[in-house]
Amino acid sequence: MTVDGELSTVNRQSSTSSLMAESKPSLYTCLSPALLHLYDLSESTVVIIDVLRATSTIATALFNGAKSVIPVASVPRCIELGRELGGITAGERDGRVAEGLEYGNSPFEYPPSFIEDRILVLTTTNGTKLLHMALDNGAEEIITGSFPNLTAVCDHLLALNKPVILGCAAWKDRVNMEDTLFAGAVIDRIGAHFTINCDSSRFAANLYRLAQPNLFEFMKNNDASHYHRLMGYGLEKDIRYCLTPDQASVLPLFVGDRLVKA
Amino acid sequence: MTVDGELSTVNRQSSTSSLMAESKPSLYTCLSPALLHLYDLSESTVVIIDVLRATSTIATALFNGAKSVIPVASVPRCIELGRELGGITAGERDGRVAEGLEYGNSPFEYPPSFIEDRILVLTTTNGTKLLHMALDNGAEEIITGSFPNLTAVCDHLLALNKPVILGCAAWKDRVNMEDTLFAGAVIDRIGAHFTINCDSSRFAANLYRLAQPNLFEFMKNNDASHYHRLMGYGLEKDIRYCLTPDQASVLPLFVGDRLVKA
Repeated sequence: MTVDGELSTVNRQSSTSSLMAESKPSLYTCLSPALLHLYDLSESTVVIIDVLRATSTIATALFNGAKSVIPVASVPRCIELGRELGGITAGERDGRVAEGLEYGNSPFEYPPSFIEDRILVLTTTNGTKLLHMALDNGAEEIITGSFPNLTAVCDHLLALNKPVILGCAAWKDRVNMEDTLFAGAVIDRIGAHFTINCDSSRFAANLYRLAQPNLFEFMKNNDASHYHRLMGYGLEKDIRYCLTPDQASVLPLFVGDRLVKA
Repeated sequence: MTVDGELSTVNRQSSTSSLMAESKPSLYTCLSPALLHLYDLSESTVVIIDVLRATSTIATALFNGAKSVIPVASVPRCIELGRELGGITAGERDGRVAEGLEYGNSPFEYPPSFIEDRILVLTTTNGTKLLHMALDNGAEEIITGSFPNLTAVCDHLLALNKPVILGCAAWKDRVNMEDTLFAGAVIDRIGAHFTINCDSSRFAANLYRLAQPNLFEFMKNNDASHYHRLMGYGLEKDIRYCLTPDQASVLPLFVGDRLVKA
């Protein structure tokens, strides 16, 4: 192709890895909704991550047969939509079922016998906020991720082969441990298939590898703020479930105003 | 103090550690200027961290005898103030001395023979922005931190025994590796003397412990974005210096509009 064919070949060989890197789609980790504006979502799949417990519960409900999960920002909207659609209303504030709603945020509240073929209207603060922000910022596709559906998320992102934003819902915009660990788990599994020019992704992957032998113990030993909060509500069982991979192997895809099984 | 003295004693003994924890001042790590609004700075010392290379260069210039370092946001302001005060004007854009300024961002440009008793007017983007944000948000005290003055920073924070915000300057609001590593280094050294209810601080400390055997190699192996950028400019020597503790053991304190040796 060039006059200097020999040099060109040498260059081509030595730069194979960088050429390959260039052809891979990008992957970024956004550690807090307050940083989402830094990323271009327009051609990306955004993975909404709210490990404790919104996205774990969403995966579980859909895996157990829910027709759809509609995430809403407020309790009044949850009540209104629940009435309108005959859906189950759910959500917590400060560790208790919010006034006026029927159920809480625990994945254990949604076994197949209860949730099958029903619509769950779920109000959460951090996860819902980030999801709507991603929508407003023109994300091409929105899915939700959590340890219970880790493999389903990874398989989908690999098959799609398009740019990815791992969006951590965090806690009132403060970076948190468990969402970052999930981002790290995704990167640990499929990061090699993406171009990662993002220090947050490096953190997340390093943190995950460090924590990986026992995520629960890591959260405990590091006194992670959300671990602390949920343990205070007696929710150890929830935490353990939400840190366990592939108990609810499903891909929640946001379509219109709701999450459905892809 | 109570009727049930025996029970009270038991309680007191079993909760000694939590009582001690409560009496310690708080410490938070803010991973990006875009997250600074989440923290109450009013009674805090804010440590401005811009490891590559602003705060490393500030420590070095002051350690080498500079009268003061004035951080300014723009090149025109740098020129104006340099002229007014007879100061040295310095700053880079895209790895080169910015047009109209005299010197760059490298700590090696400021040996005692050059900088002693002089005023350095330095324009940087990320560090200066965060410093002015901390000022506008009412920080009680502002100092700058970097590996070259790690011990001086830690000693000061310990002696002060007041709330601390470790403020990472990041890169255009994107969380970066080296500033987080420095926050982790501070926490690794003196974290036990503070109440830390902050997952970002846990990350930083874990990341630092992982990286600590060789910070340069860690940055390299993780392809940290700023490592990549500066290596592209041929600045390996700068990176190595900026990751080495206590080569410029001084405490830069922000007073009025400038940083002086405390």
